[in-house]
Amino acid sequence: MAEAEKVLAALELPVTLDRALVGGAAYEATGHPLPAETLAKAKAADALLFGAVGDPRFDTAERHLRPEQAILGLRAELGLFANLRPAKLFAGLEDSSALRPEVASAIDLLIVRELNGDVYFGEKGTRATASGEREGYDVMSYSESEVRRIAHVAFKAAQGRQKRLCSVDKANVLETSQLWRDVVIEVAADYPDVALSHMYVDNAAMQLVRNPGQFDVIVTGNLFGDILSDQASMCVGSIGLLASASLGVGRMGLYEPIHGSAPDIAGKGTANPLAMILSLAMLLRHSGGDEASAARIEAAVAAVLAAGCRGADLGGDMTTTALGDAVVAALNN
Amino acid sequence: MAEAEKVLAALELPVTLDRALVGGAAYEATGHPLPAETLAKAKAADALLFGAVGDPRFDTAERHLRPEQAILGLRAELGLFANLRPAKLFAGLEDSSALRPEVASAIDLLIVRELNGDVYFGEKGTRATASGEREGYDVMSYSESEVRRIAHVAFKAAQGRQKRLCSVDKANVLETSQLWRDVVIEVAADYPDVALSHMYVDNAAMQLVRNPGQFDVIVTGNLFGDILSDQASMCVGSIGLLASASLGVGRMGLYEPIHGSAPDIAGKGTANPLAMILSLAMLLRHSGGDEASAARIEAAVAAVLAAGCRGADLGGDMTTTALGDAVVAALNN
Ligand SMILES: CC(C)[C@H](C(=O)O)[C@@H](O)C(=O)O
Ligand SMILES: CC(C)[C@H](C(=O)O)[C@@H](O)C(=O)O
Repeated sequence: MAEAEKVLAALELPVTLDRALVGGAAYEATGHPLPAETLAKAKAADALLFGAVGDPRFDTAERHLRPEQAILGLRAELGLFANLRPAKLFAGLEDSSALRPEVASAIDLLIVRELNGDVYFGEKGTRATASGEREGYDVMSYSESEVRRIAHVAFKAAQGRQKRLCSVDKANVLETSQLWRDVVIEVAADYPDVALSHMYVDNAAMQLVRNPGQFDVIVTGNLFGDILSDQASMCVGSIGLLASASLGVGRMGLYEPIHGSAPDIAGKGTANPLAMILSLAMLLRHSGGDEASAARIEAAVAAVLAAGCRGADLGGDMTTTALGDAVVAALNN
Repeated sequence: MAEAEKVLAALELPVTLDRALVGGAAYEATGHPLPAETLAKAKAADALLFGAVGDPRFDTAERHLRPEQAILGLRAELGLFANLRPAKLFAGLEDSSALRPEVASAIDLLIVRELNGDVYFGEKGTRATASGEREGYDVMSYSESEVRRIAHVAFKAAQGRQKRLCSVDKANVLETSQLWRDVVIEVAADYPDVALSHMYVDNAAMQLVRNPGQFDVIVTGNLFGDILSDQASMCVGSIGLLASASLGVGRMGLYEPIHGSAPDIAGKGTANPLAMILSLAMLLRHSGGDEASAARIEAAVAAVLAAGCRGADLGGDMTTTALGDAVVAALNN
């Protein structure tokens, strides 16, 4: 986050920056991962840049007090239902992907993940079965309007790209998916210029390895989107490179890297700051309407990677700070 | 299936072979994807070799009449709760995987997928929301005993391999996963020689691309196992190479390729028969206790691939029949 703030400062934009604690840090300081003060600041803001959550030290806390509840709470409270996760190989990283260079180079896709529904937000808990044992349960569901609004976002995104939309579900087993598929087909009538296809999630996970270049826009539910977008991230070399935007109905949005908090390397100064810096670019574009600054940041990141700058995640030895400095320097070229 | 029968015949084992219709073919002939006669034959058998199901022509049929219900029904009716899906790169296929050769060569893993529970078999349907719209829903759940029995299978499998077990869940969001994780940890006490780790499913999907060689045995629920095993299959070059066993408490088992019915190539004679032939090997090993015949089939398949035999899925031009013939010929070398 410090590196993204450095980039923001270097741009000298008329932006007022405020900070608030969230997740594990907030829990330690206030006893709650999403304190009322943080939520109030978030609601008042025009855009949020979000540091990752998750810390194994809190894995045994009651569920509503765990760090993850902070990001789930913000997504729900702010109505951020559309998560945009673009994935594209940066020039110079052809040999960093676990995929063969010709497979990885073809990647240029956008995953549109629904973020306010699915098994994430349904009724859940532990109950006793008829025979008296413990059973954990979570209700998966989607309503027509939930599917419709995310489908519109995805079709519109496809219109601005290659006009191909693949909807991923598990309609051969799940009623939630069947409704999802039915509604996506209904919405398609409004977008005759977009070619719609459907794919089962198991096949999609396979195709994302076999030939990720086949996809333009993928739209899917909260759970499948969580899995597929992390998977796609590795196809481009490192999860430390991928930014995401979580949007609602207005211009307000939350922007975050798709990586987690990586507690194993916390404090070592080796985290890749580029995903956070690219999240700032998405913030300026979507919530700020400042395409020029967004493009300037993205060009700087591309230049830094093309020049061979690499952190530990890509087999190099540049620190988090050094990578941030390199981006700031590249901003002015 | 015809190629696997050919291999079975060539082995001249004292096996009585019976046939029954299932899935789309059974639906067309009898009006039901799993006719009573087929179920009765299945229950009477010592082992089942299963052809893939799924046909888009029936996607609009009522759910209980769709081909997929046949395999789900057999799994449930026969209590086949443990699905073993091994994945390993065959020599000669280093350049067939979408992964870089050094990444793909390191793959030697076993996915143990639970097969009788999860969101597959919970209550499901379409209901009206408070505001009167349609909502699809599916209840995900696992009880202690369901998790315990699959955990035992996985720990035992790990004991026979490299003694490393990774349990995959989404415990940071799902109560079903939290119970899963708690019970797996309890069961671990019986297997002090196995190193247990836990991984979130999104991270697992990423790690299976980044460095699949890190895994020995993976144990996971029905839905996550469906996704991850299809994904892993592509890492070894083609989904047409991967066999699976579905086991219950006794020696009876169902054996099937992990690929689907591939309706796009049905009747063209280009399907890869090797996954089905390798499924027959698993059948002879697990249900037949005939390790020698299983090893003989596997050696023949390996020899055929090492000799450069390739069907369309691997960029070659050998037909289904020609590949089956090649395996039969290799059996005697
Ligand atoms: C931290 C976790 C709750 C979250 C999710 O599953 O949505 C994360 O994995 C993500 O993808 O943003
Ligand atoms: C056909 C379908 C119901 C099945 C499943 O999802 O289990 C298949 O994908 C599999 O993995 O065997």
